[in-house]
Amino acid sequence: MKEPLRITVTGAAGQIGYAMLFRIASGEMLGVDQPVILQLLEIPPAMNALEGVVMELQDCAFPLLRGVVSTSRPEEAFSGAEFVLLVGARPRGPGMERKDLLEANGAIFTGQGRAINDYASKNVKVLVVGNPANTNCLIAVNNAKDLRPEQFSSMTILDHNRAIALLAERTGVHITEVQDLAVWGNHSATMFPELLSATIGGTPALELVDFEWYRDKFIPTVQQRGAEIIRARGSSSAASAANAAIQHMRLWSLGTNAVTSMGTVSRGDYDITEGIVYSYPVTCSAGKIEIVKRRTLDEFCIDRLRLTENELLEERDAIKHLL
Amino acid sequence: MKEPLRITVTGAAGQIGYAMLFRIASGEMLGVDQPVILQLLEIPPAMNALEGVVMELQDCAFPLLRGVVSTSRPEEAFSGAEFVLLVGARPRGPGMERKDLLEANGAIFTGQGRAINDYASKNVKVLVVGNPANTNCLIAVNNAKDLRPEQFSSMTILDHNRAIALLAERTGVHITEVQDLAVWGNHSATMFPELLSATIGGTPALELVDFEWYRDKFIPTVQQRGAEIIRARGSSSAASAANAAIQHMRLWSLGTNAVTSMGTVSRGDYDITEGIVYSYPVTCSAGKIEIVKRRTLDEFCIDRLRLTENELLEERDAIKHLL
Repeated sequence: MKEPLRITVTGAAGQIGYAMLFRIASGEMLGVDQPVILQLLEIPPAMNALEGVVMELQDCAFPLLRGVVSTSRPEEAFSGAEFVLLVGARPRGPGMERKDLLEANGAIFTGQGRAINDYASKNVKVLVVGNPANTNCLIAVNNAKDLRPEQFSSMTILDHNRAIALLAERTGVHITEVQDLAVWGNHSATMFPELLSATIGGTPALELVDFEWYRDKFIPTVQQRGAEIIRARGSSSAASAANAAIQHMRLWSLGTNAVTSMGTVSRGDYDITEGIVYSYPVTCSAGKIEIVKRRTLDEFCIDRLRLTENELLEERDAIKHLL
Repeated sequence: MKEPLRITVTGAAGQIGYAMLFRIASGEMLGVDQPVILQLLEIPPAMNALEGVVMELQDCAFPLLRGVVSTSRPEEAFSGAEFVLLVGARPRGPGMERKDLLEANGAIFTGQGRAINDYASKNVKVLVVGNPANTNCLIAVNNAKDLRPEQFSSMTILDHNRAIALLAERTGVHITEVQDLAVWGNHSATMFPELLSATIGGTPALELVDFEWYRDKFIPTVQQRGAEIIRARGSSSAASAANAAIQHMRLWSLGTNAVTSMGTVSRGDYDITEGIVYSYPVTCSAGKIEIVKRRTLDEFCIDRLRLTENELLEERDAIKHLL
């Protein structure tokens, strides 16, 4: 049996954490031959609820679960972690401006970036789920000075999956027929779900759907899906976000040849400003996220890549004192 | 690729349903080579919330998920189902007596038993999770006249897992060291978690723990664990109950040589009254639940088997007009 790996989840008693932990403990993230130790971070007011979650984890008698740590101290939560899922974030409160939101989360992700730097494994992989995810990731990576930028990533696989499902439904195929779709940029209403290179059963997607549907229906629906879920459920996506986070870590760790979408620190690919955290089409191999190169982009695409890039630059400017 | 199997979940928008559906769709119940169609039943007031759950299922782009039906009509929900998880039940409201609770659930499980009989696959496997689970199962099985009693089961694996975890913690071993434990009787405060045949790393458990601890601490802690979770979490077990339900169905369907605990219609084994739904130590093979025979029981055990049997007989008497 392999040695157990330490996996940190922040905001562990929240809805996404609750939907995630049991699947990680059952082997869905790292495989059914990989024992794990869960290290759960919460803020002090949530420690009671977290205790209940820990009791339920015990009550599952998971063979792969070799230990559970629950704490409100980041240095304890991140200690020796090989995988970190930063789920906890400050949600937007009533009357809160975007700038206030960035600022409130800035404080969290500055401290967590430093604590990961100081206490996690030197090979840690960090996924930021808590919103605004790209800019929270940017703050964390800039406060983890001894780690490499490629050890940090932000989540857009949920948007990628939503785009696949919508396209499959529209064209009447099963989701496994949809390939090479990509979600670019910020995990926000400016994200760009792009179909120029996507195929459906081998046929270019844009031969099978109208351009008008793509532009006026598909793109806005993917961009607004989170809000639509809130309207239907009365609360935000939890199980589907947890599922995407598990998938992101699994693909990052175990590899994938199929194109998916992940936020990563830009090195200037596709002329995106270096240093910001931008979602690209990627594959994964040997524990590394690899941006798909030389993907065809037309003017329509490039305009949208710029638009979501500009939003990320504005977000960066709002928190530049934290970098 | 295998043909998809239809799986019905009732109370699908509730907390246990929400914790269960995504794991079923990812292949954790029937295996990663078995496509599934989810058929989700809810009461009309919960259909909006269920719509949100369905949207989130779509947003996961699960390769194994071949379709989702959401409905408030039992005949539609159970149609062609090979597996049915009866999760939805009426919880005990303020001022509600046990008899009222049995009565309120009696109406639900009478109708569902008939609908399963009329619309599900003739080989359907039915698991009752909703409480009072044993007696709800008794009602359902008695209203499914064309099906065999062994196609119905009630859930005690959650209690079994809780007992394993508690014993492992007490003796400082990993849960995989604990074998041959059993939970007998009713899923209620009279259940009997029995250690006489249990072993820890091959050594009889009762050589490693004090009898007083077993009698005065272990048994009541397992019996009261559900209430303890509610105190810690502020709501009842959801993810651990969902995990147990998935495990119950997986073991039932795919088999297990390791002893576990499941409620099944008594045929008189261990002198338990025929016809009531009683939890026994079991193994599973070829899609069948097999009661472990000739297990050693002493007077202490037999007293407790009788106690929980008597409670089940009282419950049966309270709803005998529904059988």
